[in-house]
Amino acid sequence: MATTITTPHWLDPAQQRVWRSFLLGSTRLFEQLERDLRDAHGLSLPEYEILVRLSEAPVRSLRMAELASSVSHSRSRVTHTVARMEAEGLVVRAACATDGRGVIATLTDQGYSRLVEAAPTHVAGVRAYFVDVADADDLEAAGRVFAATADRLDRQCATAELGVSRG
Amino acid sequence: MATTITTPHWLDPAQQRVWRSFLLGSTRLFEQLERDLRDAHGLSLPEYEILVRLSEAPVRSLRMAELASSVSHSRSRVTHTVARMEAEGLVVRAACATDGRGVIATLTDQGYSRLVEAAPTHVAGVRAYFVDVADADDLEAAGRVFAATADRLDRQCATAELGVSRG
Repeated sequence: MATTITTPHWLDPAQQRVWRSFLLGSTRLFEQLERDLRDAHGLSLPEYEILVRLSEAPVRSLRMAELASSVSHSRSRVTHTVARMEAEGLVVRAACATDGRGVIATLTDQGYSRLVEAAPTHVAGVRAYFVDVADADDLEAAGRVFAATADRLDRQCATAELGVSRG
Repeated sequence: MATTITTPHWLDPAQQRVWRSFLLGSTRLFEQLERDLRDAHGLSLPEYEILVRLSEAPVRSLRMAELASSVSHSRSRVTHTVARMEAEGLVVRAACATDGRGVIATLTDQGYSRLVEAAPTHVAGVRAYFVDVADADDLEAAGRVFAATADRLDRQCATAELGVSRG
């Protein structure tokens, strides 16, 4: 079989600028939001997001697998983070009674209170550093870009997990 | 002094959708780009970015402080990452001879070769998962959003470091 050597299709200068703005802006944003939550409420950004997802779920509970796929945290680290949160009394974990598949995480009252305390800090940061610095149309456009990225990568992930390649 | 209790200014549904798309999309993107680089070249995403920045600097060298502020890596972790890269022979560090201020990191030939090998993998991922899934105008708009965020947070950081509040 012949090996084909292809020249990489480099980014053009405009794409490069977008990419670097995104890298720098998103990292600074995550750093600052995390600093604000830690200083005021002793929470990391992934912990905060887990509290939010559980608070919105029926009976404030989610299968660990669902939780992991719904948060913007590296999936491999969600188990560790939830274990730490359980030790702090913010969540409890239990085997699923009805179907034996996996573990259910449930928000405790203490976890819910912590979320209620922290939410105003977090939303103020999201506004000040992100929503309010941008033009509303640009923000909508950015939303479309990241929805497309998430969609593209979730399809890739599903394909890899099924061990099939879609034609 | 009276305490004023203000109701948080929550995100509206459209802003909420943008924010969640960004959180999920950017995390999946960073995960996948890192997985690709690790699998093919044994590099993390921050390591790759440090190689890029040094390769573009005069005599492939930067002060650690400049390097830290130019990469999209949590600033506090750059020192650790560079130490690991030095142990692997990709960079060297030396005290700055001319002004005694801090430490200079320099890309080695081995580091440069590793970058040249890894770049096609990385750019293919950036295209496939980000640039090519989005409309070109939306991408430009997303670039403006994150440039504004980075600018906003760099000003905040500068102000905090000077210990002054600007009126």
